[in-house]
Amino acid sequence: MELMNLSKQELAEKLSALRKEYDGFKALGLSLNMARGKPGAEQLELAGELLDPALLGSFKAEDGTETRNYGVLDGIPECKRIFADMLGVDSKNIIVFGNSSLNIMYDYIAQLMIFGAGDGAWSTKKGIKFLCPVPGYDRHFSILQNFGIEMVNIPMDENGPDMAMIEELVKDENVKGAFCVPMYSNPCGITYSDEVVKRFAALKPAAKDFRVIWDNAYCVHHLGADRDSLLNIFEACKEFGTEDNFIEVVSTSKISFPGSGVAALAASDANIAAIKKRMTVQTIGYDKLNMLRHAAYFKDVAGVEAHMMRHAAILKPKFDAVLSAFNKNLAGKGIASWTEPKGGYFISLDVNNGCAKRTVALCKEAGVTLTGAGATYPYGNDPDDKNIRIAPTFPSRDELCKAVEILCLCVEIAAIEKLLA
Amino acid sequence: MELMNLSKQELAEKLSALRKEYDGFKALGLSLNMARGKPGAEQLELAGELLDPALLGSFKAEDGTETRNYGVLDGIPECKRIFADMLGVDSKNIIVFGNSSLNIMYDYIAQLMIFGAGDGAWSTKKGIKFLCPVPGYDRHFSILQNFGIEMVNIPMDENGPDMAMIEELVKDENVKGAFCVPMYSNPCGITYSDEVVKRFAALKPAAKDFRVIWDNAYCVHHLGADRDSLLNIFEACKEFGTEDNFIEVVSTSKISFPGSGVAALAASDANIAAIKKRMTVQTIGYDKLNMLRHAAYFKDVAGVEAHMMRHAAILKPKFDAVLSAFNKNLAGKGIASWTEPKGGYFISLDVNNGCAKRTVALCKEAGVTLTGAGATYPYGNDPDDKNIRIAPTFPSRDELCKAVEILCLCVEIAAIEKLLA
Repeated sequence: MELMNLSKQELAEKLSALRKEYDGFKALGLSLNMARGKPGAEQLELAGELLDPALLGSFKAEDGTETRNYGVLDGIPECKRIFADMLGVDSKNIIVFGNSSLNIMYDYIAQLMIFGAGDGAWSTKKGIKFLCPVPGYDRHFSILQNFGIEMVNIPMDENGPDMAMIEELVKDENVKGAFCVPMYSNPCGITYSDEVVKRFAALKPAAKDFRVIWDNAYCVHHLGADRDSLLNIFEACKEFGTEDNFIEVVSTSKISFPGSGVAALAASDANIAAIKKRMTVQTIGYDKLNMLRHAAYFKDVAGVEAHMMRHAAILKPKFDAVLSAFNKNLAGKGIASWTEPKGGYFISLDVNNGCAKRTVALCKEAGVTLTGAGATYPYGNDPDDKNIRIAPTFPSRDELCKAVEILCLCVEIAAIEKLLA
Repeated sequence: MELMNLSKQELAEKLSALRKEYDGFKALGLSLNMARGKPGAEQLELAGELLDPALLGSFKAEDGTETRNYGVLDGIPECKRIFADMLGVDSKNIIVFGNSSLNIMYDYIAQLMIFGAGDGAWSTKKGIKFLCPVPGYDRHFSILQNFGIEMVNIPMDENGPDMAMIEELVKDENVKGAFCVPMYSNPCGITYSDEVVKRFAALKPAAKDFRVIWDNAYCVHHLGADRDSLLNIFEACKEFGTEDNFIEVVSTSKISFPGSGVAALAASDANIAAIKKRMTVQTIGYDKLNMLRHAAYFKDVAGVEAHMMRHAAILKPKFDAVLSAFNKNLAGKGIASWTEPKGGYFISLDVNNGCAKRTVALCKEAGVTLTGAGATYPYGNDPDDKNIRIAPTFPSRDELCKAVEILCLCVEIAAIEKLLA
């Protein structure tokens, strides 16, 4: 039954029992981590053959490029093609970079700060803003905060961000863009509906240099055959001629190896040209051996998808473990709600207002590290103090089950404390 | 004999004979390239074993870090140590990055533009300048030009840049720094003398945020046992407390594989802290598998040095071929002078004033591509039109001999044309 229907005394008795259970866990001296979206040890074994030098053959890309020497700014063709097919764009609209899509996004915003995108350097403008669907990815927010770009919270529901609010806000020419994770979003795991994508594509912002960073980090990261699908943003833009408004990024960090994968960007012809112009000064080229390794191992987008099913076989039971514990321990008590994603790396848990920080602190004290409460909001400030990002991928299933059990206990303790306060 | 001592008629006859020879070469339809500092095909074979997955062992760095997963901002310890030993600094003063030292330099200047180094963002300042020892590296100049930083030519002699001129110029607080290749400089191949390094260390610039980018690209790139040595800049700074003025970069691009090597930066504690602060926003970390691969293959700085002797065995005959052709065809004619480097990737050829562009154009027409005349100066403007950068590493020795023969012919033709004009 819902805890709010219990009497004070019943709540106090319940709290006392839960605290005893909690103290029992504390005494175990556990050290469990559900904080970061890192692949687990088993997943790291999946792409072992990627490191076989036989894949590199005679070190020649399909166009004859010697991959061991200098040259090729935007990536070898076979690697561009895989990313192009993953994102549904032409190879000419792809640039393959180094190991990090975060780095691509940082560099792109840095480029806007120094040079702008056709309407002056952003660093010379006062009061510029970015729209941030919340809850969202803390590292996106860090980039914006770092460059002094003001962040505006945009609430999300199961279809994506509140588009009516965005359509209104972009009438302000100080609103320069947005950061989105449109598929299996971090942390909610929701995928933007076709209507949301179309309304994004249809935006007519006042700012001439409006840019949405479309971080498609989880585009092939399904947890099984039952999956979401995302409308192709660049296809949607065609009707409106708004291709220049979007910069899409992707990487193999959670496909091959985090840190040793390959990252790529998709953009309009004009944006690709502007970025390449910067790159000719910034580098001689990225790691072509690693591109060739990846292209030869995966071969094509079907190869990537088959590989992702091997990840899913490891990840699905972990997500299920969390969801089943939530259902068993939290459902019907009126103290929490959560998402049930079909892909990605996270589950979003909403506890009662004002209970997230306390829940995370209680977990910490019992040896369970969670992503900091507030981290899913700009400036680390969750106005309702209710959202907690759950990252089930890194711990083993046994550790995970233990950690979630403790988490559920802490959610309930924090909820009762609040009701009694 | 010196051509200037010949009569007009003698010169005209000589020119006519040389032109016949030149037309003979042109008829061959050659396509030879001495333009860029790229390793040749033979060199790319030297580090083949670096790609052996056995080197990666259990994928653990010596401190236990799982190199296949996320994490580690500044590099794994065994890789940091090799760079630290190469540069004679502590490991704590090293950050290991991705594949490109050019990218490190670009990002550092971008950081200064946006955030500055303690005295305000450089992008907000008008008229800031950098000192550029000339002839120098075109990609350094491109970075400065890209960011709108004015470049001031500093002449070099066999000891390095004109330090008296630099000491005078840094009294101007708009002079914010310099780009240097202190060892086997690009293109002269000269190494800064101990006195030059000490005078750099002793500089007391008016700008509080003065930064010298000390691009030690060729620190282990000797052509044999007879080698230059460079005073350690950070050791030299100790006496003056000027460590913050220097950012040193290095990479394995011309040690292991161009494009698939590892690059690093050495700096003072304060500068390392400032750069790491930026990096925590910019990336989750660079390619640790590639770091581990390099560390396991080279083991230590002695391993690097032994490996470089294998490069030298390939490169020395190429440098000798160029120098012996210059001695045979150009010496004593009063039409050219050149450097005889003990390391690095280039030979610097000075032709008579006003003859570099013409020489390069004549070569081009005969199928020999050289670095564009002027490229070794800021804004592509060699005020005397005399310097040509010779890159002997990429062509085979046979191609190189043919290319140099044509080059010498073109130098002489251009010189006589000028004398007759």
